[in-house]
Amino acid sequence: MRLVGEAELEDVAVGAAILGTGGGGDPYIGKLLAQAAIREHGPVQMVSVDELDDDDFVVPSAMMGAPTVMIEKLPRGTEVIRAFEALGDYVGRKPTHTTSIEAGGLNSTTPFVVAAQLGIPLVDADGMGRAFPEIQMIVATMHGVKATPMTLADEKGNSAVIDTVDNSWTERLARTLTVDFGATSMIALYPMTGAQVKAGAFVAGTISLAEELGRLVRETRAAHEDPVAAVVERLGGRRLFGGKVVDVARRTEAGWAKAEARIDGTGGDAGSTLVLQTQNEHLVAIRDGVVVCSVPDLIVVMDAETGGPITTEELRYGFRVVVIGAPCVPAWRTEEGLAIVGPRYFGYDVDYIPVEERFP
Amino acid sequence: MRLVGEAELEDVAVGAAILGTGGGGDPYIGKLLAQAAIREHGPVQMVSVDELDDDDFVVPSAMMGAPTVMIEKLPRGTEVIRAFEALGDYVGRKPTHTTSIEAGGLNSTTPFVVAAQLGIPLVDADGMGRAFPEIQMIVATMHGVKATPMTLADEKGNSAVIDTVDNSWTERLARTLTVDFGATSMIALYPMTGAQVKAGAFVAGTISLAEELGRLVRETRAAHEDPVAAVVERLGGRRLFGGKVVDVARRTEAGWAKAEARIDGTGGDAGSTLVLQTQNEHLVAIRDGVVVCSVPDLIVVMDAETGGPITTEELRYGFRVVVIGAPCVPAWRTEEGLAIVGPRYFGYDVDYIPVEERFP
Repeated sequence: MRLVGEAELEDVAVGAAILGTGGGGDPYIGKLLAQAAIREHGPVQMVSVDELDDDDFVVPSAMMGAPTVMIEKLPRGTEVIRAFEALGDYVGRKPTHTTSIEAGGLNSTTPFVVAAQLGIPLVDADGMGRAFPEIQMIVATMHGVKATPMTLADEKGNSAVIDTVDNSWTERLARTLTVDFGATSMIALYPMTGAQVKAGAFVAGTISLAEELGRLVRETRAAHEDPVAAVVERLGGRRLFGGKVVDVARRTEAGWAKAEARIDGTGGDAGSTLVLQTQNEHLVAIRDGVVVCSVPDLIVVMDAETGGPITTEELRYGFRVVVIGAPCVPAWRTEEGLAIVGPRYFGYDVDYIPVEERFP
Repeated sequence: MRLVGEAELEDVAVGAAILGTGGGGDPYIGKLLAQAAIREHGPVQMVSVDELDDDDFVVPSAMMGAPTVMIEKLPRGTEVIRAFEALGDYVGRKPTHTTSIEAGGLNSTTPFVVAAQLGIPLVDADGMGRAFPEIQMIVATMHGVKATPMTLADEKGNSAVIDTVDNSWTERLARTLTVDFGATSMIALYPMTGAQVKAGAFVAGTISLAEELGRLVRETRAAHEDPVAAVVERLGGRRLFGGKVVDVARRTEAGWAKAEARIDGTGGDAGSTLVLQTQNEHLVAIRDGVVVCSVPDLIVVMDAETGGPITTEELRYGFRVVVIGAPCVPAWRTEEGLAIVGPRYFGYDVDYIPVEERFP
């Protein structure tokens, strides 16, 4: 167990936005919300997965919806608490811990709001080792963990509890409710025992990894070194492309932020074009018509100068960026994992090839 | 209190389909489901509103969605029980009674399934004195009764509980969930105390009225008298039009069965045309371009020969029909009532004029 305070959250938010691969929400908003909660209630106790008891009751808390809408429709701390407590009420047991459903600027820090306000510890983990756009896209699905009962709350005072036959049905019902709520909702879902988390249903250590990545960016920047190179090395990834954003077409569709960005190469990449296709998170990177990186591997857009991660909603014409690819957690590289989050699930008729194999 | 058995349900289903004004589901299916439950569990105890104790806990049970879909996707008794019990579990109190949310072929008999299976009494009432397409269109809304917590269940095993800031939000969320469920769901909603029901939140005596109307049709038909005239007289209504259906255009949209039917006059109505516009229930009757009856008054299509009510989904080319208009319950004729269910709510730029005033 260790305490996480306002300072650490600066790094967590930045690092989680890197792992968020363009989605998972704005790290600035996420940081502010969590820091405000910590300022009021004190630092959060973060425990590692192996510190859990088998019969602990872990409930992840998060935001769902289109992050583009999020910018104009700020969540308040009360909604996420309402969703979280409603789940405990519904199952008749108070959660002992919360954790993060996905790594992302907002969804890695949201659970800190819950942990601080309710005075419960947060588990250093997440459900994906990155961010993904749909609810069933979580390692826990492969462990037979049900997403439901799941609770949803909006800022007006509406709420819902759903209970579904499988996690794809959870996604379907929660998505339309979220659209009705105005394209974002605060949620609690995937209630788990400590034993399930320890058995690998969630990815251990993701929050610490995010903090480490955020610190790397901050420290290399301060030392006038190359933050992008440091992140690539830490993640065992590859620098895919450097250039200037020349076009971003985006639309909010069915509660998702969909986008296609075109980047014209500069330096060694001059003469080439990289296209990123995105559904909250970046799905594929296509260089001159050829896929060079795809889900479930991480595709991260970073500011060429500062090394800061750029979310999909921030991305715009004229930005000078570096795009990197990084390996996903091993669970996604199995046949079962690829069926849930591989390129074919998202409608791309290409095989998944790990980024390290593409660029040995 | 009196017992209602299989025989009485024949009349209830027919009479409720008259009050259902084209919607509220197929009386034949409703009857079969309720009769099967009664055959297995015995007759249902029906109590009048004034027999309720103030602290009784009354929960209406019903079907929601497009009745057109209902015909191909038969509800099973288990779904409505699941929705009903889930509401009790959610609020932490077992309902003491069930009742009908609306008069209609299916929604007046559905609560008999619940009452028979769970062995609880049914209150002789409904929420509207007729059927209406949207959840908030219920007298209880004017009494400040909340539609939520509301539970929904489908035949696959999915379920939801929603809690909303007002009854229009309930309609909105429940509608999209119902569409996701495949256009129909079984629901429990508007949990009320006995005191609220007695104060007029629900319309007393609707089930008895339905039974009486069904018996009238059956007995006049057997006596070779005119069932339509008998129903018109009992309801204090008016015979609006007689003719032959020459066109029915229908579509299932956002979980509703929308339709427009054209009837060419015969006999005294020869040379005229009546158009019925429908959203589950008939909203307006337009004779030669002029509205002659509108919501909230009842517009009922009956078989010219047998006097049986014809639901919207049954209506088709060639049917010889009589269309009648009948006064709604007084609560709907107030300013507050008309704001909820008057013609303007449904997008018609006409004033509501009671059918008895139009045809003195």
